[in-house]
Amino acid sequence: MKLLEERIKKDGRVLSEDVLKVDSFLNHMLDVSLLNECAKEWKRIFENEHITKIVTIESSGIGIACITAQYFNVPVVYAKKLRTKNLDNDFYSTSVISYTHGQAYEVIISKDYISSDDSILLIDDFIANGSALNALITICEQAGANVVGAGIAVEKEYQNGANRLRERGYRIESLAKIKSMNKNGEIEFC
Amino acid sequence: MKLLEERIKKDGRVLSEDVLKVDSFLNHMLDVSLLNECAKEWKRIFENEHITKIVTIESSGIGIACITAQYFNVPVVYAKKLRTKNLDNDFYSTSVISYTHGQAYEVIISKDYISSDDSILLIDDFIANGSALNALITICEQAGANVVGAGIAVEKEYQNGANRLRERGYRIESLAKIKSMNKNGEIEFC
Repeated sequence: MKLLEERIKKDGRVLSEDVLKVDSFLNHMLDVSLLNECAKEWKRIFENEHITKIVTIESSGIGIACITAQYFNVPVVYAKKLRTKNLDNDFYSTSVISYTHGQAYEVIISKDYISSDDSILLIDDFIANGSALNALITICEQAGANVVGAGIAVEKEYQNGANRLRERGYRIESLAKIKSMNKNGEIEFC
Repeated sequence: MKLLEERIKKDGRVLSEDVLKVDSFLNHMLDVSLLNECAKEWKRIFENEHITKIVTIESSGIGIACITAQYFNVPVVYAKKLRTKNLDNDFYSTSVISYTHGQAYEVIISKDYISSDDSILLIDDFIANGSALNALITICEQAGANVVGAGIAVEKEYQNGANRLRERGYRIESLAKIKSMNKNGEIEFC
């Protein structure tokens, strides 16, 4: 999506060949108008699919997932990082290795909120090595739900997480695909 | 707001006199239509105020803040729990004592995203003892920003967090105010 690529070029900050900071519009500060444009594009792409829920992962996926859910008239379920004493034990879970923070953590979704009746669209802001998206797929499949596909705002294509999932048959629709970044701050799109 | 009170009565689960679980519509699973109704109500309440940004706190505030931001045409900034290696040191920070998890943690907002030019509406899903909202106010005031007020979906009035902030002069607009809950699952609204 041209609008998103242009915004990344304008406001994204390349901190290294691997780290792109989009804190000023896609996480930390959220440009809700831009999120709406992403949502409309996913609505166009997945228009003919039967979707009952949107599933994402805290925290940075929640905003873009909620905006997108308005176009599909479905609820959002977000996977939580395990840390609360306020949850029942009755949940699906798996582990994620965070690319940004370099550590593993457990994510969960209550068994009350996804089931084999669901056809799920996954939404997230970023995909790099694919660990978070893979965890969401694992959890949905534990529930017996159908994974229709995934809408991702920014794919770092060279880190191959999305491509590995595509090879396994999943439909991953990224709106901006980065082919490479360099130390001079240059970003090349696919 | 009648709609929210009715939904709390229907789908909220009272786990103890202090703990109300609204995981099926307000956090974990999000009813985006309901969030839109809350947003419209805050738009009505704060219509005549000059607002430049909505500020919230991860994770459960993000969805409702993004939906609300659409009605004010402003960006959302969410305070992050401190844990990443991917952030600059250039941020405002303070600590929050989590009522749910019973522990203190540091929250931050980058100095790039709020300033003395901002008039801020705070949005969150819940207020109990007020620690999270108080932290957001502290951070906004560190930045010299004007805090216009706060929109909260559910206030546990008897825990007094909102009232203490009102006594300090802040405008806190809660859409459902709970006066008491008991072990039989009964909820009384103010």
